[in-house]
Amino acid sequence: MTKQELINQIKKKKSFLCIGLDADIKKIPTHLLELEDPIFEFNKQIIDASKDSCVAYKPNIAFYESMGVNGWISLQKTLDYIPKDIFTIADAKRGDIGNTSSMYARGFLENMNFDSVTVNPYMGSDSVTPFLEFKDKWAIVLALTSNKGGLNFQKIEGENGKKLFIQVLETSKEWGTVENMMYVVGATRAEELLEIRAIVPDHFLLVPGVGAQGGSLKDVAKYGLNKDCGLLVNSSRGIIYSGNNVDFARKAKIEAQKLQQEMAVILSEAGI
Amino acid sequence: MTKQELINQIKKKKSFLCIGLDADIKKIPTHLLELEDPIFEFNKQIIDASKDSCVAYKPNIAFYESMGVNGWISLQKTLDYIPKDIFTIADAKRGDIGNTSSMYARGFLENMNFDSVTVNPYMGSDSVTPFLEFKDKWAIVLALTSNKGGLNFQKIEGENGKKLFIQVLETSKEWGTVENMMYVVGATRAEELLEIRAIVPDHFLLVPGVGAQGGSLKDVAKYGLNKDCGLLVNSSRGIIYSGNNVDFARKAKIEAQKLQQEMAVILSEAGI
Repeated sequence: MTKQELINQIKKKKSFLCIGLDADIKKIPTHLLELEDPIFEFNKQIIDASKDSCVAYKPNIAFYESMGVNGWISLQKTLDYIPKDIFTIADAKRGDIGNTSSMYARGFLENMNFDSVTVNPYMGSDSVTPFLEFKDKWAIVLALTSNKGGLNFQKIEGENGKKLFIQVLETSKEWGTVENMMYVVGATRAEELLEIRAIVPDHFLLVPGVGAQGGSLKDVAKYGLNKDCGLLVNSSRGIIYSGNNVDFARKAKIEAQKLQQEMAVILSEAGI
Repeated sequence: MTKQELINQIKKKKSFLCIGLDADIKKIPTHLLELEDPIFEFNKQIIDASKDSCVAYKPNIAFYESMGVNGWISLQKTLDYIPKDIFTIADAKRGDIGNTSSMYARGFLENMNFDSVTVNPYMGSDSVTPFLEFKDKWAIVLALTSNKGGLNFQKIEGENGKKLFIQVLETSKEWGTVENMMYVVGATRAEELLEIRAIVPDHFLLVPGVGAQGGSLKDVAKYGLNKDCGLLVNSSRGIIYSGNNVDFARKAKIEAQKLQQEMAVILSEAGI
């Protein structure tokens, strides 16, 4: 998907919501467990219920990989079921030396046909650039993550006074363009978005941690929105596990709609 | 596998060789392609030929994942075929927020039953510690990698004058013990092993980049060896692709034996 196509979807749906399809066999409603592929069935119903409210789906690959071969089959079925006008993110956090990263990139972007993959920057340029070589596909590079451990290294200041995540942004933005790179930016301190926007004003940012993890959508929008919107804000558990009975999809739909409606107001106020 | 068991194997085999099972369908001998599972057949013959010369096998997961479901089947068959007294490393470079890293850890260490997984430290403590919760299993944390991009961030100096990979070592060594953590340390500048050994004198280090990538085994040993050996030195392409005909396994055996014999001399000289 191109940047313009994504922007068009955001304007059409009045939403910049990404839904994390983190389907956990231990958490999905028990009545699904009798079915042949409970994980796919769960995702299918979530997608049916939420597809009008969101512009992206983001399965975290760990949930599927941990189930072995069956998990990969459920993942591919899920991906194939997602409507083609919705942006897809393999939240895989991969990264290896160049020729090996190429294999990860081909696997997700070509063979499976995701629109994008999340990539870990620790190994530097040749670990990221192989993900940039596919037409209309994207690498989404981890910059600042919202987990506790994100503090261990990402905010270490260099001799030049710049924090590591700032250096990751400054260095890595030269490897690609605003048409094939985005950044993961945790929303625990929305003011940091100001610092980030000073470096990457035009890149899309994928912001996790809104919803169940407690980030404020308003703050994220206040500091992160750019003229094209430029944000994908993710919610996973707050939507997909809002119910755990036969009506789980209906409850997920309500939660997705709530966020979409907040987003519609934000976009309208920003004139987007 | 416990640390003592690994040390015993090193002493018994007079080897600290790790062989990278990076089986690439485009590089394996073409006569194997007629078989039902060419990747497993390739690995099986490599293992048969080299198992007396090495103490560890390290499949890089990208090679298998990129082949989809069939790749994961080949990987599990390969892992199950490796003799139980040889240490196994899932070179996966995973890492995510805590509950998600747990799923990766369970997948590799419990379901598949690898002895260890390589882990990316960028996301910090809660991305690594889930890999430390399995008895006699290991997390192998990336510290310094030998690829070109390793220079982008790993050697950035902090305000305190310490390079990032040094801070990764100092901080992360508190998360586990010498019984459940190792470090990946690229061998492009063996003198850096001196700096590293000053911080983690007793940890095992996994050193890639010897062989096809040109690192010097003698230098690595000179600066990296500790009283228990404390090194696993990896070679992938230099061994497994030393031949590409029906006699590929015999050629791989010769290359593995060469490295083992060099290692036997090194261990003997060090009195190990």
